[in-house]
Amino acid sequence: MSSSFELLQQCLKRLPGLGYRSAERLALHLLVEQPGACEELMAVLAQARDSVHACPDCGNLCEGDVCEVCADGSRNRAILCVVETVTDLRAMERAGPYRGLYHVLQGKLSPIHGVGPEQLNLAGLSGRLDQLPVEEVILAVSNDIEGEATCHYIQEEILAGRGLRVSRIGFGLPSGGGIPFADATTLRSALEGRRNCD
Amino acid sequence: MSSSFELLQQCLKRLPGLGYRSAERLALHLLVEQPGACEELMAVLAQARDSVHACPDCGNLCEGDVCEVCADGSRNRAILCVVETVTDLRAMERAGPYRGLYHVLQGKLSPIHGVGPEQLNLAGLSGRLDQLPVEEVILAVSNDIEGEATCHYIQEEILAGRGLRVSRIGFGLPSGGGIPFADATTLRSALEGRRNCD
Repeated sequence: MSSSFELLQQCLKRLPGLGYRSAERLALHLLVEQPGACEELMAVLAQARDSVHACPDCGNLCEGDVCEVCADGSRNRAILCVVETVTDLRAMERAGPYRGLYHVLQGKLSPIHGVGPEQLNLAGLSGRLDQLPVEEVILAVSNDIEGEATCHYIQEEILAGRGLRVSRIGFGLPSGGGIPFADATTLRSALEGRRNCD
Repeated sequence: MSSSFELLQQCLKRLPGLGYRSAERLALHLLVEQPGACEELMAVLAQARDSVHACPDCGNLCEGDVCEVCADGSRNRAILCVVETVTDLRAMERAGPYRGLYHVLQGKLSPIHGVGPEQLNLAGLSGRLDQLPVEEVILAVSNDIEGEATCHYIQEEILAGRGLRVSRIGFGLPSGGGIPFADATTLRSALEGRRNCD
């Protein structure tokens, strides 16, 4: 059809969660159906690109010196929750109850994808543990082999000898999920993570 | 969280087919996970905005004087297919067999949404029928009350008295769709559109 249009559609199709049809729909919406939508998207993309960066302390998104969580004086600086991505951090924040600080790894150890400790945001973690009055570290890392390896590395190389309380978030049956729908790994985790009912 | 980020997420969420989660995922991908993706998207958006416009003849997307379909000398200029949107035109082109020209209405008559004949790309249709050696008009407009009204208007106000063969595309059971899954309107259309088997 039209080559700039195809280029836009291909670019949109490479974004996560978009296929051929949805990319076409977006491109037509931006160029034809909604005059101004293209301008608006370009403006907010430019603004976000210019002002959003990783928080130098925790790795969360931020627009000032540090992110909103790090800047919030009411957060409990004795607890640090280690997450893989900003997406995970935002999901934790939406869930609500956690009031400590975070540390975003920007990934997990994965030799097969070329991700070693140097590729993760681990260098800052020791420094933060020196500076902050941290007593507890919660490893909120995914329930797979790579997550397991990441936790192991952090415990052995960074947390060892600091006398901290270290935990991993619970794994098991998701809320609203029945046993027949759970896969074997989830059920194994749920059995291992069983709690006494008293 | 971060206000430029929220702005981007809200802007993405307003696009068709994107919800809160998918907009968040896209925004994080563009700003954090895939350095350069934001730049690239902005560049192709700017290029598409500057070069893509509606074909002055048929209303299809085009980047030159007229669109690829209108410029293609091998297309049959005796048949004109009237469609509602560029999306419909592209779906027809993907389907393959049609080799005539198109006319894109950019919508359908819908008094409830304030769409009258003046809001549609109808002004150019008479002129095209005068200029082109059209013998047949196919109304490929949707199978609902508004599509019905649009077809009626075009037949009465634009096509009447021209001695053209006028048809609507067939309605009925979609390919691969069983009778139990079809709604009442579809089944009614399928019965009305029945063909002799000889």
